[in-house]
Amino acid sequence: MTGEVRLAKLGIGVLGVGEMGKRHAENLRRSVPEARLVAVADVAAERARQVAAELEIEHSFGGLDDLLARKDIQAVVIVTPDKFHAQGIRAAARAGKDILCEKPLATNLADAQAALDAVKEAGVRLQIGFMRRYDPAYLAAKKRVEAGDIGEPVVFKSLGRDKDVPPLAAYQSNLNGMLFYNNTIHDFDLARWLMRDEVAEVQAYTTVAIRPEIAKYNDVVASVVNLKYGHGAIGNVESYVQAIYGYDVRTEVVGSKGSVFVGTVAQTPAVFLSSSGRTQTLADHFLTRFADAYLAEVRDFVQNMLNDRPPQVSGEDGLKALAIAVAAENSHRERRPCEVTLKDAGTPAKAGLEYR
Amino acid sequence: MTGEVRLAKLGIGVLGVGEMGKRHAENLRRSVPEARLVAVADVAAERARQVAAELEIEHSFGGLDDLLARKDIQAVVIVTPDKFHAQGIRAAARAGKDILCEKPLATNLADAQAALDAVKEAGVRLQIGFMRRYDPAYLAAKKRVEAGDIGEPVVFKSLGRDKDVPPLAAYQSNLNGMLFYNNTIHDFDLARWLMRDEVAEVQAYTTVAIRPEIAKYNDVVASVVNLKYGHGAIGNVESYVQAIYGYDVRTEVVGSKGSVFVGTVAQTPAVFLSSSGRTQTLADHFLTRFADAYLAEVRDFVQNMLNDRPPQVSGEDGLKALAIAVAAENSHRERRPCEVTLKDAGTPAKAGLEYR
Amino acid sequence: MTGEVRLAKLGIGVLGVGEMGKRHAENLRRSVPEARLVAVADVAAERARQVAAELEIEHSFGGLDDLLARKDIQAVVIVTPDKFHAQGIRAAARAGKDILCEKPLATNLADAQAALDAVKEAGVRLQIGFMRRYDPAYLAAKKRVEAGDIGEPVVFKSLGRDKDVPPLAAYQSNLNGMLFYNNTIHDFDLARWLMRDEVAEVQAYTTVAIRPEIAKYNDVVASVVNLKYGHGAIGNVESYVQAIYGYDVRTEVVGSKGSVFVGTVAQTPAVFLSSSGRTQTLADHFLTRFADAYLAEVRDFVQNMLNDRPPQVSGEDGLKALAIAVAAENSHRERRPCEVTLKDAGTPAKAGLEYR
Amino acid sequence: MTGEVRLAKLGIGVLGVGEMGKRHAENLRRSVPEARLVAVADVAAERARQVAAELEIEHSFGGLDDLLARKDIQAVVIVTPDKFHAQGIRAAARAGKDILCEKPLATNLADAQAALDAVKEAGVRLQIGFMRRYDPAYLAAKKRVEAGDIGEPVVFKSLGRDKDVPPLAAYQSNLNGMLFYNNTIHDFDLARWLMRDEVAEVQAYTTVAIRPEIAKYNDVVASVVNLKYGHGAIGNVESYVQAIYGYDVRTEVVGSKGSVFVGTVAQTPAVFLSSSGRTQTLADHFLTRFADAYLAEVRDFVQNMLNDRPPQVSGEDGLKALAIAVAAENSHRERRPCEVTLKDAGTPAKAGLEYR
Repeated sequence: MTGEVRLAKLGIGVLGVGEMGKRHAENLRRSVPEARLVAVADVAAERARQVAAELEIEHSFGGLDDLLARKDIQAVVIVTPDKFHAQGIRAAARAGKDILCEKPLATNLADAQAALDAVKEAGVRLQIGFMRRYDPAYLAAKKRVEAGDIGEPVVFKSLGRDKDVPPLAAYQSNLNGMLFYNNTIHDFDLARWLMRDEVAEVQAYTTVAIRPEIAKYNDVVASVVNLKYGHGAIGNVESYVQAIYGYDVRTEVVGSKGSVFVGTVAQTPAVFLSSSGRTQTLADHFLTRFADAYLAEVRDFVQNMLNDRPPQVSGEDGLKALAIAVAAENSHRERRPCEVTLKDAGTPAKAGLEYR
Repeated sequence: MTGEVRLAKLGIGVLGVGEMGKRHAENLRRSVPEARLVAVADVAAERARQVAAELEIEHSFGGLDDLLARKDIQAVVIVTPDKFHAQGIRAAARAGKDILCEKPLATNLADAQAALDAVKEAGVRLQIGFMRRYDPAYLAAKKRVEAGDIGEPVVFKSLGRDKDVPPLAAYQSNLNGMLFYNNTIHDFDLARWLMRDEVAEVQAYTTVAIRPEIAKYNDVVASVVNLKYGHGAIGNVESYVQAIYGYDVRTEVVGSKGSVFVGTVAQTPAVFLSSSGRTQTLADHFLTRFADAYLAEVRDFVQNMLNDRPPQVSGEDGLKALAIAVAAENSHRERRPCEVTLKDAGTPAKAGLEYR
Repeated sequence: MTGEVRLAKLGIGVLGVGEMGKRHAENLRRSVPEARLVAVADVAAERARQVAAELEIEHSFGGLDDLLARKDIQAVVIVTPDKFHAQGIRAAARAGKDILCEKPLATNLADAQAALDAVKEAGVRLQIGFMRRYDPAYLAAKKRVEAGDIGEPVVFKSLGRDKDVPPLAAYQSNLNGMLFYNNTIHDFDLARWLMRDEVAEVQAYTTVAIRPEIAKYNDVVASVVNLKYGHGAIGNVESYVQAIYGYDVRTEVVGSKGSVFVGTVAQTPAVFLSSSGRTQTLADHFLTRFADAYLAEVRDFVQNMLNDRPPQVSGEDGLKALAIAVAAENSHRERRPCEVTLKDAGTPAKAGLEYR
Repeated sequence: MTGEVRLAKLGIGVLGVGEMGKRHAENLRRSVPEARLVAVADVAAERARQVAAELEIEHSFGGLDDLLARKDIQAVVIVTPDKFHAQGIRAAARAGKDILCEKPLATNLADAQAALDAVKEAGVRLQIGFMRRYDPAYLAAKKRVEAGDIGEPVVFKSLGRDKDVPPLAAYQSNLNGMLFYNNTIHDFDLARWLMRDEVAEVQAYTTVAIRPEIAKYNDVVASVVNLKYGHGAIGNVESYVQAIYGYDVRTEVVGSKGSVFVGTVAQTPAVFLSSSGRTQTLADHFLTRFADAYLAEVRDFVQNMLNDRPPQVSGEDGLKALAIAVAAENSHRERRPCEVTLKDAGTPAKAGLEYR
């Protein structure tokens, strides 16, 4: 006896196949049977070709337009450098594709608003890649908060530390947003999602002390951002890009009746006891720590697209987290607390960066 | 531009698609690109059909023979109830297939030896599914031991506790081996692998105190097995099938210079702090705890078969762990310490259980 | 055979025997053989009498002057409410006594400076009760930092949460300083001690959201204070007075090569595993968490006084931590980042609060 | 005003002031105001003299008789080497003193029974020094078990590991009992106390593998002892005298509804995060780990003696734990499971070891 099966599948393309994009492609190819990964594209055409070969994807392209031109692609995942996100969204929307875009939505409010306008006009759907919302620990924390287990939220705390010293070239290329847009934006999203309130004002201190040479690229090594919420709660978010010891993410919501904490897990639970004490290996990378979350994220996106449901993390979520990051950058520059606002978006850069 | 790829793949079939077999099928289908999962088979033909449909596998069969008859299948994964393992191995070997068989190799030494003889005669390869050897924590522990970090091993400790009370039907059907064969066998394998020595003698106490009705099915609820090694070390292994609070696996090797411990991890690192203290969710199932290990196991098997390398966990490993379980059962029955031996294998049951 | 012993002892008096003062008296009476606790005094004379009876102390007084008049007292421990600290120091200094004074040194810079002037003029010695500096965990952290194990410090993080909702009467009596002086001051001291640098500027957000009625007593329920150090590091300190779930103190120094973390320990290591997960009791009070530190503190003070050595935590340490608290309060009131300065001390209140 | 106090106090003497005895003396002298430590005695008279001088104790003696002759001593604490315990109890009982004796009660059943008989005949009271029963963690575990939180106890697990390699002289002097009497006896007591059932049979494996030279002193380096309870539960206890990495004590009671675990705590909660992972210091000594328990134990003893109440840990508790140790030693010698029995006590050694 032989079983025959034919399911409706979502035709999908991945734009940008660096480390993160390749992971998205791999997840789609191997672990999301409802998706059909039709093509990958990258300005580095050879990289796209290699990824396609390795993952047995039919097509690879050296640019955005070829990918968007395909009729058998209904949705795209955008994993380009930060500064191309908004442009990619606009182009994909114009081509009528649904979109899962990595965070941040954009690196300034004008570009972000323009991207959202394009999405709205085209009638397509947009999800922002805040994958932590799919992490079992964060979901458990969210559930605790929503169930009232911690009472009324009073203080939000979060920190994110990356392990390795970023190469200087990453600063020089200037294709990603500064710390607040590329890293802290995750915590700014959690600050809204877990607290179910909006951040009204922020104040930031930053430092380049152990790496003064990156100051000229308008970036920082570490930051502490104080948060003031609309309805009385307060908070603080810390970011540090070169923690050396490990990839460390911790978030806590402290309430009137208790607290819920999401902390770094050791990479493996093998504990070594010796005369120098108890030693445990630590997690080293977000692709390890959040492997399951990334997969759950893309699965959920595919399911929602196939079933005509709205995505769970909206473009507006992307915009509002970005607004906090913009206020944090303003506070960093102007040395004063800054209001979080969507209003002063201005107009998007005319001759903006383009990823073609 | 379009990339074209054609890789040599291992044609594979899965025999038995209950919970565990389905997971193997899923891993092979979705996450092992070097394998081509040609067919699944199960005495429950409808179950095989459904799994094939869900995972988009071309063929499903209601029995062993159809699967073994296929020329495009070079290897089989045997995931039938324990008591059919040896028979399945013999049949697969006769059909010239390489084999990955779930633990235990068999539920008595005669069947085990007959299976190994068949494998040898047919010139095929056999791997036993001790997947913990692929778990990152256990691998890290093994590495510590082999590097001499804990000095000379002195005491081996291990425990395995399952979460849910097994249904009475599981005892009544009598298709799996008793506690020592179905559960403790993992610890018996670790007892050899991590200590790099053989267990020479064991002594077991068992209990049915909280579930006396299973005594008539020759099974027990919990056991403690003392181990005496060939070269002076000692150890103890505990098993408990209805821990209620969670799936709990812990192993420790204590040496002359230190100790290495592999412990249960909480399922998610969300910690809830309230006036009743600190609360953390626990792991609930071996398919959760060892998800990565099962995948690594089957990937490694496929790679080794494709590259004509011997499997990493041999049939002899299966036989030796089984011999410890047999000695434990003897100690349980005869109320005395029992030597671990491969000698008294006797002759395999003529009209043994058959899975056709 | 009978041994006879006669050691030189430090005659000592304790001023203020509420919960904290009684603990100091108990430690001195029972566990510091080099001290002779001559008398306790409290404006509540009956409380002093009871503590003296319970601890078998020879004398008890209803006021400061009788205690300071005794010639057999060389040193006093001041454990009055915060707002009487500075006055108590001035009086004790004038009487020629060495002093161990609980934190804070004072609740404003003018009083603090006046107290330090009196100490200097009298040629006596003053130690401030930052007992965390005597806690084994904090000492271990300090040692790591000083050994260079974490490289150059980049970020300082600390939080302190008290367990029980303070009674409204505590706010109404208004004898202690607001949150920053009574609670956060510990973290401000650690911020200097562990980082080996001075805080140059702070920015604070505070909240009374879950207890609006205390706003009229000029106090707050929780705060987050961002710190900017003189030499490039940054930091954040959180305080929360009614955490309900436990007494929770955590401090971390993150550096260029690693991080050192001091965290809350569970009160007892008994862990309960049940179907609702893993549960662990938490610490509930600073007198439990820091029991050993308080004892080590007073022992060290006594030893240094007996051996004519300067105290390990100076009056200037008290002043500098206070200056951070003052800047935090200013930031809270003026809604802007505030410089930390010792300069604008002004003149102490003429007819200040007196504890007689 | 001056308070005058006069309380009834228990006159007490400490016999044996090695490391452990000195701790008892120190606790009594400094932290138990209801006791008056009249004298210490030790066969090493100079050691007794030094301890008396250091702790300001009036009298010190070079032997047992002088101490027992004092009318102002109502109770003695016996902290001599194991093999003198029973003789010391007999002598103290004859002198009409109440007794707190360190574990074990004796090193054989005949001596133990003779000691209990002497106590009974003299009408004095005897407490055995199982101080773990006073440890907050063990008390919390006991409470969980008694409250039924873990349901019916099924498996008892315990381990005790000492940190430092014992000097060979300790084996040569042969004044303490072998591993089972000196170390494992704590776990044997917990095995009864926490499970609220008696151990009926034991089976032991032991090893001297990493220190063969101690075999000739009839001692072992490590052991695993399987336990069979009277009412169906089972258990295992591990002991190891030279764990190097730390002083490690863990106990678990696994029941039909949950489990309660008492584990080693890190000595200080300072955690160091570096590129080699997470490192934490471990406890190094029982006097550190159980400091509070020892103090609570002696306080409770003094209170009960002053108030004419029976001690909380009886001589019979001492006898029953000893009987398990004797059975374990028999199993070790005779290589078979051995029944736990009080019957074959025989007669005490006539010319036994005497501590005069």
